[in-house]
Amino acid sequence: MQTPTTPPARTVRNVLFIMCDQLRADHLGCYGSTGALTTPHIDRLAERGARFDRAYVTSAVCGPSRTSFYTGRYPVSHRVTWNRVPLPVDELCLGDYLAGAGRSLSLLGKTHFVPHRAGLEEHGYQLSDAARTRFLEGGFTPLERYDGHYEMAADSPYRQYLLNQGYGGDAPWTDHVIGSLDASGAPVSGWFMRHAALPARVREEDSETTYLTSRAIDFIRAQGDTPWALHLSYIKPHWPYKAPAPYHAMFGPDDAAVPVRHAREQTAGHPVHRAYQRHEESESFARDEVWRSVRPVYMGLVKQIDDQIGRLMAQLAQAGRLEDTLVVFTADHGDFLGDHWLGEKEYFFEPAVRVPLIVVDPAAAPGQVHQDFVECIDVVPTVLEALGIAVPEHRIEGLSLLPRLRAGQPLAREQVVGSLDYAYRAARLHLGRQPFECTGWMLRDTRYKFIRWEGYAPQLFDLLDDPQELQDRGTDPALEPVRRRMNESLVDWAMARHRRTSESAAQVVHRTDAHQRLMNIRIGTW
Amino acid sequence: MQTPTTPPARTVRNVLFIMCDQLRADHLGCYGSTGALTTPHIDRLAERGARFDRAYVTSAVCGPSRTSFYTGRYPVSHRVTWNRVPLPVDELCLGDYLAGAGRSLSLLGKTHFVPHRAGLEEHGYQLSDAARTRFLEGGFTPLERYDGHYEMAADSPYRQYLLNQGYGGDAPWTDHVIGSLDASGAPVSGWFMRHAALPARVREEDSETTYLTSRAIDFIRAQGDTPWALHLSYIKPHWPYKAPAPYHAMFGPDDAAVPVRHAREQTAGHPVHRAYQRHEESESFARDEVWRSVRPVYMGLVKQIDDQIGRLMAQLAQAGRLEDTLVVFTADHGDFLGDHWLGEKEYFFEPAVRVPLIVVDPAAAPGQVHQDFVECIDVVPTVLEALGIAVPEHRIEGLSLLPRLRAGQPLAREQVVGSLDYAYRAARLHLGRQPFECTGWMLRDTRYKFIRWEGYAPQLFDLLDDPQELQDRGTDPALEPVRRRMNESLVDWAMARHRRTSESAAQVVHRTDAHQRLMNIRIGTW
Repeated sequence: MQTPTTPPARTVRNVLFIMCDQLRADHLGCYGSTGALTTPHIDRLAERGARFDRAYVTSAVCGPSRTSFYTGRYPVSHRVTWNRVPLPVDELCLGDYLAGAGRSLSLLGKTHFVPHRAGLEEHGYQLSDAARTRFLEGGFTPLERYDGHYEMAADSPYRQYLLNQGYGGDAPWTDHVIGSLDASGAPVSGWFMRHAALPARVREEDSETTYLTSRAIDFIRAQGDTPWALHLSYIKPHWPYKAPAPYHAMFGPDDAAVPVRHAREQTAGHPVHRAYQRHEESESFARDEVWRSVRPVYMGLVKQIDDQIGRLMAQLAQAGRLEDTLVVFTADHGDFLGDHWLGEKEYFFEPAVRVPLIVVDPAAAPGQVHQDFVECIDVVPTVLEALGIAVPEHRIEGLSLLPRLRAGQPLAREQVVGSLDYAYRAARLHLGRQPFECTGWMLRDTRYKFIRWEGYAPQLFDLLDDPQELQDRGTDPALEPVRRRMNESLVDWAMARHRRTSESAAQVVHRTDAHQRLMNIRIGTW
Repeated sequence: MQTPTTPPARTVRNVLFIMCDQLRADHLGCYGSTGALTTPHIDRLAERGARFDRAYVTSAVCGPSRTSFYTGRYPVSHRVTWNRVPLPVDELCLGDYLAGAGRSLSLLGKTHFVPHRAGLEEHGYQLSDAARTRFLEGGFTPLERYDGHYEMAADSPYRQYLLNQGYGGDAPWTDHVIGSLDASGAPVSGWFMRHAALPARVREEDSETTYLTSRAIDFIRAQGDTPWALHLSYIKPHWPYKAPAPYHAMFGPDDAAVPVRHAREQTAGHPVHRAYQRHEESESFARDEVWRSVRPVYMGLVKQIDDQIGRLMAQLAQAGRLEDTLVVFTADHGDFLGDHWLGEKEYFFEPAVRVPLIVVDPAAAPGQVHQDFVECIDVVPTVLEALGIAVPEHRIEGLSLLPRLRAGQPLAREQVVGSLDYAYRAARLHLGRQPFECTGWMLRDTRYKFIRWEGYAPQLFDLLDDPQELQDRGTDPALEPVRRRMNESLVDWAMARHRRTSESAAQVVHRTDAHQRLMNIRIGTW
């Protein structure tokens, strides 16, 4: 672990918060990717800043993870337990905090955010135009929201762009962005993974990753010297697994890592794990032809992102913004791609819950590498502190990374916590459970990963002996003391969650034992 | 335990939800009060309806308990952990649910409710006039809000009433309602318990309990045959302990029960218990002259409430409303009055957390007595179901009592849970703790009461052997298995709280594995 020596005396004026969707940490060079896939531009980012080797999301699903990234709170607190669960109307996001300080947080790309319109109606809350946008968009000011993975609405700028570039038909995304032509020249859909290896019909310069990067470059250029904050949120390498040329063929089946999995997981796996193995994506990825087709395309999509990061950073340098811009590069979760006989994400194995997190703080020394446990909830307090905005500590559950980056102070955290609500998945039906009894919890420390399931025995992995998590020790009698200790830590953590969000600690202190001082009330005076 | 046989076929059209403040269950005849204090009118209420012998509040403090009564949710969920903590802007109260069904919930008396105005501003939410009242008043439509225990604002109707009745001066509440004249004719304040035994200067017919009852009678009379719902919320027998004649002298020191306490609690009590013993009210009530002065006045205040309940019920009968009105009679918590070397309430001993709960359901058989564990969160679903309004089960954590009352179905609950946030009390300062590490939890089942404290060893009471809770078994090695079991039950309960409040179970089921059906998305198809 390296720590900074003399950090440069610079002030952060801008924020570039880059998120990839479904990007595994181990597919980046700086996180140890091996073989054909290199990511020199992202590696360079890490060299200029700090790489966090133990960065975890609070839940390996877009909705809860992103809501944690945007609110600085755990899913148990923000209550968006799965995709498209509306955000309760009392929650505040990073963009709301920036708005409170007279700034705004622009958005290019995906958020997956769903406002709780019904909640607004139940209370009779009305909104001014300015407040309405923040309500509808999770605090963001969208330059262009683009959630990906479905055909775009008629007024979508990217759709208009594609039509203007000559991609014909009513469904340019379906036909060109994820569409291919087969050997006979017939159109085939990227929704089917058997077509993954075919190139997208869209040209590379018009594909999702490049298009969003271009918009970001336009935005940064247009700001000139005016301070800005931008969330550049790529949809890739998220499915549909479809890359434009030349990325579709940059890697072959033999370049792909073989899935990490063991037959024992199929026959004797945990009931919830086995239920997840019955999902279609898991059954598909269990077949060699599937991962051998899809993994190379996934690698190509990562390579494309790396190239675009290079292009973006070159623009940032050219605009003179390297010295006053805080850059955060991360992902909302990983992708199993067949590991543990699973497709997609969710669950608690490392390929899903561990993410890349690179922070380039111009006021910190370059080349930092940290083993501290960091969580996606740390982004909000880090950004707020970097911009000199007070962190509302009675709401924010994350920790600012600036003391670590600028002063070498280790983070006050010895474990990370994850959660999963599988109520919305077929796994619930396979297991015959009700919608409100499908919660799993993960506690991971330097050695063990403990998973507590509602209604089932726990799981335990010894990451020292078994870094690939192939040997579930959830019922190993020898490790009963470890499970008990881990469970107690998890429970202590859960029971200590801050429930009080409508008064700050300072307000509590002000009101402590203050009946007489504040209210002229005497209690118990003889 | 008695169960109904053939319930009368009646429909509930009106709701009379009566709450007393700080009323111990054991001071009512039907709950076993002995000696001089009888409560024939409240006893009659129980005879006409159902008495729940094991009714508990979720927290023995006004704020969190009332918020549970009004939201149907535990403090861990509604997040009003102590008095005057603003209610988060996403919470809904009973009056809001009634408003959603075109009804309203009128208020006479106390709620202790504080809206989260800052939360409204942070989000930019604006309110129409109708919604504003519900926001400001916790869903109620105030006929007259009267929180008691401080001098009233200039426009308070009760203040105007007192002035019109000839109670002079600028501070009629201070001077007359809680003021007395001493032996020399000099005015003395009811804030000092040494004056408790003196009669209030206010006449009984103008005192708080009687005044509020009169307003309730006016309201019910004015409704005629129009359906109504009223929360009649007495401030008494809450401090200041001051009764009007003749109630001030109806009982003497020898009529009062001797406080339940043991010297061991002072010397070897739990650290949090001992910190509470250092509060001024506890130190006062530890002195015999204090409880011997105050307890008789408290009894007088209870007696006055009983007489006023008699008057109110006579009016209800005269108006023909007995047959279509659901009556709920309860309290927000009890009062230690020196028990366990404590004054006031809070903590988890039975005199504070157990409350009277009488439900008169005209559609249920009379004379029911139940030992089911019921909680204050059960009132909201009971009222909603009685009025034919759908219970939003993804929000409401209580259970409707109607299946018990009307069909003899035992409640599906084997324990009650309480919580306490002592961050606002001097106890926190005595213990040197921070505002966010002051939570205690109680789990009580048919035999044991287990208390889990943040940062301290637990407490355990065997209520079979030790119903007075004088022998803390928190460190008794023989009961380690019991503590472990209770802790696990408590933790299981806590970990299973429903976090998802913005989607119903039906919505979850609708969206389960529905990517393709609802969004035309294929995940993992080869």
